[in-house]
Amino acid sequence: MPHIQLRNDLYGITSLLDYRQETAAPICELTDLLLCGESTLNRSERELIAAHVSRLNDCTFCHSAHAAITCRLDAGGEEPASNNIDSLELSDKMRSLLNIASKVQRGGNHVTQNEIDVAKEKGATDKEIHDTVLIAALFCLYNRYVDGLATAIPANPAFYDALSKRIAGRGYKMPENGYHTLQF
Amino acid sequence: MPHIQLRNDLYGITSLLDYRQETAAPICELTDLLLCGESTLNRSERELIAAHVSRLNDCTFCHSAHAAITCRLDAGGEEPASNNIDSLELSDKMRSLLNIASKVQRGGNHVTQNEIDVAKEKGATDKEIHDTVLIAALFCLYNRYVDGLATAIPANPAFYDALSKRIAGRGYKMPENGYHTLQF
Repeated sequence: MPHIQLRNDLYGITSLLDYRQETAAPICELTDLLLCGESTLNRSERELIAAHVSRLNDCTFCHSAHAAITCRLDAGGEEPASNNIDSLELSDKMRSLLNIASKVQRGGNHVTQNEIDVAKEKGATDKEIHDTVLIAALFCLYNRYVDGLATAIPANPAFYDALSKRIAGRGYKMPENGYHTLQF
Repeated sequence: MPHIQLRNDLYGITSLLDYRQETAAPICELTDLLLCGESTLNRSERELIAAHVSRLNDCTFCHSAHAAITCRLDAGGEEPASNNIDSLELSDKMRSLLNIASKVQRGGNHVTQNEIDVAKEKGATDKEIHDTVLIAALFCLYNRYVDGLATAIPANPAFYDALSKRIAGRGYKMPENGYHTLQF
């Protein structure tokens, strides 16, 4: 049971974005910029940072959603063979960025010069390091928002496949007529 | 030394908002809505949640800034006697909301029905609980962003007094000509 009164036909973050649409607008805008905007990291790589941090934060809804989105984008937008992020092939640069994201999840002061030096050696730019830190920090927000208010988890895992299809296609822009109009 | 190349005349979050103004816009909009928008919690109470979470996350810049803003707002916008948030008088409702914020800082799954029941008993509404969780989660983002990139801390503590005066007066709207034009 959610800690506050939310629509009972919505799950996870969608129930919260629906609850307060005024704050939902900048949250969605920031997410769309970071995960779908122009970047030298592809969309699957950026979603992987979100899925990885959500798993470290034990956030079932966000981890399931972003793992499904990561794997679908990695499969070129098609239905992936699995939603297991550990099965993806990663570059050394991506591994070094995920290492920075793991430290950010523990706390900002856990990121040391060492992780940064390794990432730069593997070819990461300042902007890629900046965006990795901000995506990891954003999912530390999302995971706490979703679980701190005890939002509902969908009973049917097919929910995440439908959600991943939608996000792969149109990103994080808010639905014009509200989240309850989405068909998952 | 910051982990990426930032303007060396800016400190903490201002150096990051300046670095990527595209992402700064929704971050500032969300913060202004939550901390300065309409609410049954006064601005000092909402800043206290930000200061409290930033202290728990050991984020010197954010804790110093938001403690100074909390105390100035509590003093009606005038120079406060001190910037120590522990010297403020708090209602039982605020204590119960800070307790929820402490759990959010540890992780979303740490918030239990017990903290929620106590807050509701002390008169907290669903919206106050929602906003407390989202403010606490937002500062888990800020603290990781500011420290994860090792942003500079101002040498002179008078910086925070000048910053608090500005925020008390105009909130979190972005400066029209960039953060480097601010006089602290």
